[in-house]
Amino acid sequence: MTPSGVSNDMQAEIITIGDEILIGQIIDTNSAWMAQQLNAIGIQVKQISSVADYPADIIVALTLASGRADIVFVTGGLGPTKDDVTKQTLSVYFECGLRRDPKVLAHVESIFQRSNRPMLEINRKQADVLDSSEVLFNERGTAPGMWVTHKEKPYIIMPGVPFEMKHIMVDRVLPRLRNLPGTQPLWHHTMLTAGIGESFLAEKIADIEAALPPHIHLAYLPKPGLVRLRLTAMGESLAALKSETQAIANQLAERIGEHFLADEDTSLEVLIRDFMQRRELLLATAESCTGGNIARLITTLPGSSSIFEGGAVTYSNAMKRELLGVKQKTLTEYGAVSEETAREMALGAQTNFNVDYAIAVTGIAGPDGGTTEKPVGLVWIAVAGKNEVVSRKFLFGHDRAINIERSSVAALFMLWQLLNLEWKANDTDRTAI
Amino acid sequence: MTPSGVSNDMQAEIITIGDEILIGQIIDTNSAWMAQQLNAIGIQVKQISSVADYPADIIVALTLASGRADIVFVTGGLGPTKDDVTKQTLSVYFECGLRRDPKVLAHVESIFQRSNRPMLEINRKQADVLDSSEVLFNERGTAPGMWVTHKEKPYIIMPGVPFEMKHIMVDRVLPRLRNLPGTQPLWHHTMLTAGIGESFLAEKIADIEAALPPHIHLAYLPKPGLVRLRLTAMGESLAALKSETQAIANQLAERIGEHFLADEDTSLEVLIRDFMQRRELLLATAESCTGGNIARLITTLPGSSSIFEGGAVTYSNAMKRELLGVKQKTLTEYGAVSEETAREMALGAQTNFNVDYAIAVTGIAGPDGGTTEKPVGLVWIAVAGKNEVVSRKFLFGHDRAINIERSSVAALFMLWQLLNLEWKANDTDRTAI
Repeated sequence: MTPSGVSNDMQAEIITIGDEILIGQIIDTNSAWMAQQLNAIGIQVKQISSVADYPADIIVALTLASGRADIVFVTGGLGPTKDDVTKQTLSVYFECGLRRDPKVLAHVESIFQRSNRPMLEINRKQADVLDSSEVLFNERGTAPGMWVTHKEKPYIIMPGVPFEMKHIMVDRVLPRLRNLPGTQPLWHHTMLTAGIGESFLAEKIADIEAALPPHIHLAYLPKPGLVRLRLTAMGESLAALKSETQAIANQLAERIGEHFLADEDTSLEVLIRDFMQRRELLLATAESCTGGNIARLITTLPGSSSIFEGGAVTYSNAMKRELLGVKQKTLTEYGAVSEETAREMALGAQTNFNVDYAIAVTGIAGPDGGTTEKPVGLVWIAVAGKNEVVSRKFLFGHDRAINIERSSVAALFMLWQLLNLEWKANDTDRTAI
Repeated sequence: MTPSGVSNDMQAEIITIGDEILIGQIIDTNSAWMAQQLNAIGIQVKQISSVADYPADIIVALTLASGRADIVFVTGGLGPTKDDVTKQTLSVYFECGLRRDPKVLAHVESIFQRSNRPMLEINRKQADVLDSSEVLFNERGTAPGMWVTHKEKPYIIMPGVPFEMKHIMVDRVLPRLRNLPGTQPLWHHTMLTAGIGESFLAEKIADIEAALPPHIHLAYLPKPGLVRLRLTAMGESLAALKSETQAIANQLAERIGEHFLADEDTSLEVLIRDFMQRRELLLATAESCTGGNIARLITTLPGSSSIFEGGAVTYSNAMKRELLGVKQKTLTEYGAVSEETAREMALGAQTNFNVDYAIAVTGIAGPDGGTTEKPVGLVWIAVAGKNEVVSRKFLFGHDRAINIERSSVAALFMLWQLLNLEWKANDTDRTAI
């Protein structure tokens, strides 16, 4: 048995080295990314361990991991100020020496020349690699990756800087792993739902879940406002796994109905971008309590400029009046956090920024600023569309960060619903639009 | 020896349960937060392990962790759709049964009544706790925490939902841990630097680092555009540790000079908010390629409304003209990504939004949209202040997300420098401002 409740032949472990993680100064985002990549090629991650850059801890972690896994990934501990300990320790574990690699050294030197910085001895040392390793050349940084085969087991050692690690994985490691023996087909089918809680979803689909065959497993992956459903299947034939999970996904989609957003692992932002791009629709945002977070979520996506005209972050009433044309009378009579203000913000953005759709959010994110009538967590959201303006009140909690996140997701979901209401019927008839 | 290179009596381990982490669907942010909290009270985290919600894996992880650590934290695996496996496994490990806790049950029922949702049996099961445990009551959710003392060692079991775990830690666990024997004083002194790379910083302060006494350790914690320096000291007297690390911090500050931002673990946004709040200055943003991220970074902070008037996310040229008054001539002659446009954006935001300071960013975030003359990663930033507009060109890399992050940090650092240039001299003379 394995994480997904299905079995495979090839199991990996990830060891991250460095006190930054143990002291809580950085969050380990590398392991999740690596796990996704490995899963996609049928290698399951059995365990992730974070240890300090202290020789004995590193050696114990390597020993335990190599006893449990078929392949071991090590990240971190290779930066210029700390690679001494890690590399020395690895050379003890792998019973080999260190050599200075001329190709890596030339690369490190060229990086320093290009940026006109003088090169220091600690930078030169970056070119020292394990004698018994094959270098995984790092084009994006000074610390090379290393592939060591020790007692017939592969160990992949990479720097901890995320974009350097990702480059080495994508360009050097994954292509080789795909050819390793023992990678049995594993298939994930992920679906996106919104506006329904995890337990209700579970109850709604309990009989479908109970009837799953033993080689297919269902997981619930909740986030604020959204729940992802993931089917994991393992077997001999990838084609069979794909068609089996698709059939179950169809059953789930039908059962879940309007809360079923997508039959793939995607996000609301991506769905919206693609939907609006296809119809050449333009979007703008008018944000108060979300402070630019909705604009950020959209513009994080490549290609968002084709649908996103821009937005206003109107924290003050003056900005609401001037950029969005909210009436002073509305602000005085109903307040900045009100249905009326939200609707005027949305309409103002739609008109002033000359777009097809506009999202507006106004609320009290907290932790201060609440009253009995308008408590922290109260949020009004309005979306202006082709034919109407829809508005809705939400009452979230007390945590500022979570309120911002939930408001953003709720606003994007309202936009998604309105887009579907106003366009889906015409979906097959583009010329009529 | 421990993660920080100094020794302590009390060591903890964290075990996270759940295939969401191993499959890479969620990132483990809990462990970093817990490590920070534990470190602050002198408990060091020796290792973090993520295991699947599979009984044997959980039991092996518990056995190994309890052999290494004085206290074991377990998070995850307690949600309504998966708590069966975890609780059953824990009851095997701790050799006890499960009981339904009436207080927890009443709480779960009240949550469902309040939201008018029917209650299901899987929700009732959330009230089942380990017989030998003391309940750590969870006001924010349905899954209770548990404190088990097994063979004289404490085990703290908590749900994986971050804000529920944090509540249980802050309100139930940390107050008790502070009174445990064996928590020897540990002191962290963190400093913030910007605009200087990790290796240069290390070279610049090499002699200070080399001269550190054995009970004080220096760590480099780099992020895009910033490097944090952290001194960790362990000893008998907290007062002595504080004064020793302060003396070293003063040395470092003097040596690092203009790149030394703060003698504390803070962020650029917090420094800017506090600086501007004290002087009653107002800020606005004009963002193109950062797409609202700078506004978001600022408005994530409680109290930001006292300094942040709002901002414009002007993705299109039309928005740049209309909201910020950028001239069509400038856009035609120099292009949207140019020094001239950046300066007009900053001045336009300052004037139109009626603020003291305005930040403007325009660039090519990628992955597409670059030309030979203006490649992906080219960013112009301008900051309009009291007496002048400063502008600067940056050439970042090819990764959209990293370009957005680095542009945001660079823009905030430029604002910070201009604020200091224009106001620091008057710092002691508030009435003259």
